[in-house]
Amino acid sequence: MIINLILSGGSGTRLWPLSTNQRPKQFIPLFSGISLFQECLIRNQHIADKSIVVLNKSHVEIARDQADLPGIKNIEFIEEKIARNTAPAIAFAAIRCFDDDILLVSPADHIIEKDESYYNSINRAISLASKGFLVTFGIKPLFPEVGFGYIQHEGENVIAFHEKPNEDLARKYVESGTYLWNSGMFCFTAKTYLDALSKYQPEVLKFCNMVIEEKDEKHAEEHYHNIPSISIDHAVMEFADNIKVIPSNFTWTDVGSFDALSDYLQKRDHQPTNTFLNSSNSNFIINEGNKPIALIGVDDIMVIQTDQGILICKKGESQKVKEIYSDIKKITC
Amino acid sequence: MIINLILSGGSGTRLWPLSTNQRPKQFIPLFSGISLFQECLIRNQHIADKSIVVLNKSHVEIARDQADLPGIKNIEFIEEKIARNTAPAIAFAAIRCFDDDILLVSPADHIIEKDESYYNSINRAISLASKGFLVTFGIKPLFPEVGFGYIQHEGENVIAFHEKPNEDLARKYVESGTYLWNSGMFCFTAKTYLDALSKYQPEVLKFCNMVIEEKDEKHAEEHYHNIPSISIDHAVMEFADNIKVIPSNFTWTDVGSFDALSDYLQKRDHQPTNTFLNSSNSNFIINEGNKPIALIGVDDIMVIQTDQGILICKKGESQKVKEIYSDIKKITC
Repeated sequence: MIINLILSGGSGTRLWPLSTNQRPKQFIPLFSGISLFQECLIRNQHIADKSIVVLNKSHVEIARDQADLPGIKNIEFIEEKIARNTAPAIAFAAIRCFDDDILLVSPADHIIEKDESYYNSINRAISLASKGFLVTFGIKPLFPEVGFGYIQHEGENVIAFHEKPNEDLARKYVESGTYLWNSGMFCFTAKTYLDALSKYQPEVLKFCNMVIEEKDEKHAEEHYHNIPSISIDHAVMEFADNIKVIPSNFTWTDVGSFDALSDYLQKRDHQPTNTFLNSSNSNFIINEGNKPIALIGVDDIMVIQTDQGILICKKGESQKVKEIYSDIKKITC
Repeated sequence: MIINLILSGGSGTRLWPLSTNQRPKQFIPLFSGISLFQECLIRNQHIADKSIVVLNKSHVEIARDQADLPGIKNIEFIEEKIARNTAPAIAFAAIRCFDDDILLVSPADHIIEKDESYYNSINRAISLASKGFLVTFGIKPLFPEVGFGYIQHEGENVIAFHEKPNEDLARKYVESGTYLWNSGMFCFTAKTYLDALSKYQPEVLKFCNMVIEEKDEKHAEEHYHNIPSISIDHAVMEFADNIKVIPSNFTWTDVGSFDALSDYLQKRDHQPTNTFLNSSNSNFIINEGNKPIALIGVDDIMVIQTDQGILICKKGESQKVKEIYSDIKKITC
């Protein structure tokens, strides 16, 4: 069985006030009313026999509502009591599967164009996964982005994983032609993943199993706290030797900032509602409120209005949203 | 009797979204909850025996509420069915007064510091008014403002009134030392004003009287439409020879734009509420909403949030607010 394993644990601090802890970005209706979570379900529905969604328990209701789509039938939700990063999240799903079930791990909050190039990459990954490889997806870089990790490769073989680089290094990576963006997508059988976890991070596997087997809720919570919070990259991918990468060309972005969202939506001719401009150019506006927004004499800014607040941010500076959201939460929550 | 005649007919299009047609700027609580209309009442309460307020009938309720202040007792409201500018507004009050009542004409939407210098000017004006002069107040200009009219003078004698100048001319006016800002404040007896009106604008007086005497409401409205819409400057001051000007030093601004309001409030250490700044300097923010406003990487802008809308305006460009408010009204009203 092929399972679309959707990781939906994002906390939504980088797109405030559009996303919040209560409504992370994967659940925002961005594209004619469709959320990224729904896009992910729809994109993989013809590949996968089933979907498993790992998510914070406070988002189960919104996820269930949004999963009520034509063609989406076989779906299971795994509630996380506490976010423990991706390695435990995938383990919780893998433990519930049969050994040879193939897991296609898809973060819920990425934008991906579902074209031929995407499905070709997925099919190749499934084929390698069924042979016992831990498969990762590397995106051919379009520019020297400093917000992504990189995978150094030779064809489908991984030379090394690299953390987010500085600008100089990012430029060198892109110029070399042998580095790919680390997409955060993976493909493997349940057994391949659990074997690797058992070998490199036995603690993660041990406490995940204890949580699942524990009947007493209070004890289960204690076990939860004992699970190391670690990403699949740091837990497994950087150590294992049965790794493959699929060098891919499909359109992919992690929408990690308003600059990324603005770049993407403006290519799609985004037209904000209830907005009035006078001597103002090259601005990006999202108006979710019912009040008009008027701009006079301002250029190159991003304005986001929702019922949570108003953000006015110079283009290119949106990596600071996370910081300011943390200031706002201190005062208002 | 000395009467504080408050002209409160402003329509509130230049400070949108803070002011609107429903709530013009004189009724906005700007200074620790006190509006400009209230400041005007308080400022003149020890000079005047009575206040008369001429205003649009849709603002009578808010004006009555705001006039409920300690010490403000003798007050009368004259409702205008249609705004006909200042000459008819003053006539409606003057017709109701005794000949030798002294009218101190005060626009409701100006900011004035009530210091010794102010009261000295008023006392001198009252003294000249009681001798039969039409007295105007000229403010010694602090900078070459193009948004005000100017009065050319020699002591208390008026040489000429001048319309709003261009920048070159404004600079020449200020450098010459013989020009004053035309404050829009006046002082005269009811008889002096009505005599001048009868001489230079008999039509204004005729139709104002017809409105007052007409019992039939529909006919009264017809007479209202026949009143020429004209300012006291164009109707009387530019023709009369019994004019005096009081060259004054008191702090005065007509708050005609957000730039003017920003200049004034920032001198008074205005601190906006519920606002978060990151790498942002020299901005002016008014947040009347209950949602936070966050600024990242933007300088020299003005942000105004109210329940009417959001304005983001480059400093120095706020004269365009009137234009954009007219666009907004077309769509939303």
